[in-house]
Amino acid sequence: MTMRTIEWVPETSQVRMIDQRKLPAALEFVYCSTAREMADAIRDMTIRGAPALGVAGAFGLALEAARPAGDDLRRQLHNTAELLKSARPTAVNLAWGVERILKLVDDPEISTADLAGRILAEALELAEEDVRTNLALAQHGASLIEDGDTILHHCNTGALAVVDWGTALGAIRYAHEQGKHIHVLVDETRPRLQGSRLTAWELEQYSIPYHIITDNAAGYYLRSGKVQKVFFGADRVAANGDVVNKIGTYMLSLAAHANRVPVICVFPLSTLDLTESNGDNILIEERLQEEVLGITYQGQAVTPAAAQALNPAFDITPHELISAWVTERGIIYPPFDRNLAQVGYNTRLDR
Amino acid sequence: MTMRTIEWVPETSQVRMIDQRKLPAALEFVYCSTAREMADAIRDMTIRGAPALGVAGAFGLALEAARPAGDDLRRQLHNTAELLKSARPTAVNLAWGVERILKLVDDPEISTADLAGRILAEALELAEEDVRTNLALAQHGASLIEDGDTILHHCNTGALAVVDWGTALGAIRYAHEQGKHIHVLVDETRPRLQGSRLTAWELEQYSIPYHIITDNAAGYYLRSGKVQKVFFGADRVAANGDVVNKIGTYMLSLAAHANRVPVICVFPLSTLDLTESNGDNILIEERLQEEVLGITYQGQAVTPAAAQALNPAFDITPHELISAWVTERGIIYPPFDRNLAQVGYNTRLDR
Repeated sequence: MTMRTIEWVPETSQVRMIDQRKLPAALEFVYCSTAREMADAIRDMTIRGAPALGVAGAFGLALEAARPAGDDLRRQLHNTAELLKSARPTAVNLAWGVERILKLVDDPEISTADLAGRILAEALELAEEDVRTNLALAQHGASLIEDGDTILHHCNTGALAVVDWGTALGAIRYAHEQGKHIHVLVDETRPRLQGSRLTAWELEQYSIPYHIITDNAAGYYLRSGKVQKVFFGADRVAANGDVVNKIGTYMLSLAAHANRVPVICVFPLSTLDLTESNGDNILIEERLQEEVLGITYQGQAVTPAAAQALNPAFDITPHELISAWVTERGIIYPPFDRNLAQVGYNTRLDR
Repeated sequence: MTMRTIEWVPETSQVRMIDQRKLPAALEFVYCSTAREMADAIRDMTIRGAPALGVAGAFGLALEAARPAGDDLRRQLHNTAELLKSARPTAVNLAWGVERILKLVDDPEISTADLAGRILAEALELAEEDVRTNLALAQHGASLIEDGDTILHHCNTGALAVVDWGTALGAIRYAHEQGKHIHVLVDETRPRLQGSRLTAWELEQYSIPYHIITDNAAGYYLRSGKVQKVFFGADRVAANGDVVNKIGTYMLSLAAHANRVPVICVFPLSTLDLTESNGDNILIEERLQEEVLGITYQGQAVTPAAAQALNPAFDITPHELISAWVTERGIIYPPFDRNLAQVGYNTRLDR
């Protein structure tokens, strides 16, 4: 099965996206014809996931460039860039995708007549790069998965977070396509439930057997000996290998480590932040308490009306708890800082 | 504030109970006038919590005994005992409370005329014993709490699970009444959310400051140095000190232990099961998957329609992770098996 979270439709010059607000109840698509529609789709989380947002920003500019041009196309595109970036102001990848297109807009050697074509080509290339990187991650990651494995997976790291494939979930999908029999324990990933909402939905699309468990139940299964590997992605990785990832990753890694279950962290090398020597100084985003309080259980409110919540979105997993990194250039084992050079990744040359 | 989860109303010969199905949205009371009504209240979880169910069973027989007697009151009471026990067949304490009353029913030295009065007196004594035990737990537990502590608490261990006070939450409440300033991080305790539904509600009644966090966020706060102690109860404790408690206790204890935060387990000595040398052979109840799947997030279904869940209700926390036991006879430190004798608890004499 091929699934593209976001895709250019050449016949109509539109962008087609899976409407992630409707999942898992329904698979519906949204078509954007203008940059303004794209900005709305980013703001209301029709599309989400860091790499996917970068591509969305680039396609947003391509939509604008394809319109009948006004007096000053370049200024018009700069205004559109601001509109798109402001739709999710804290999303680093969104700004990065937009900026990459703006380099063309600001290139005096590209004529105004050529601009629309060049921008679309660059946006398409950005989407293809994302797919290539993720496919490489999936292939390397799958090499760590054996026939018969039960894998515990945290959050959503699948195609829905990128353009296609994904990171940790991409590896599981690739192993499944290799014919390996895999069973996935999907932790629900409170508060936003990306596990039960999105990962479970993706696994159904790929026909991979799974069960949903509460985040609390992960320790029970890890201690039982029924889980062979833990897989997750990363939002940011410090120079020493400390991993900033979705809240709950730290406790899951502790429980896996205590029971000698390998902890596999799958991410593109662009996730490495070598300006941070370790994870402890990285600011953790505190999100709205409604994400914690806004659930109902069997139809009823689950908190007192006046209840307040604290909602850190990420936590820091010390590198000692991570068994292996999977990157698009291969697998890296501890000590991560030293072994990074093995895959040909040099901080001065590559960044 | 005095709160009795279950109470005999002498004026009307009824049993009054907090309707726990309505919490936290509303504090309502249910009055039972017959044993059949009590059995219904047990079955539909108007009342829950192991010690509270024992008292409910005893009061159910007191209600039956207070009715105009038929030809054979003793047989009538035996039938009622079966009805009550079958309302929650796996609840050990319910059966225990009922059996304790049946000893009177089967005592040939008690006349039929005296039976109703003796049964009511025994049921009231059982409720008072529960309060005394819990108050002792609360007092001992509070001695471990210091002014200014932030305490992370798992599940509901408060008055709602017993007749009054509770175990771990009772200790927190007692420390608050001593004038200590405490802040509680209430983990929501998926799947049944006893933390956000019941513990948060109780803390509001006692005017103790708290915030709700997801179970996933516990590790983040423990690692941050902002938590001074972790408190929880126990459903069963093995001879070596391994603790069977609500799912999630194990991961929480691992995270506390890794960050040198004391882990305090509060329980009455009746929770000790010295027939189990350790926790590993204790069968863990697997509950209905609807408890995991039956939530909505911001009004929407959170799992694919065909999703299946696994739902172990408890996990096993190895004794090495527990810093102290609080019992009604005092605080016990590791090694628990050896130090049990210090509080005058002798397996042969006491059981």
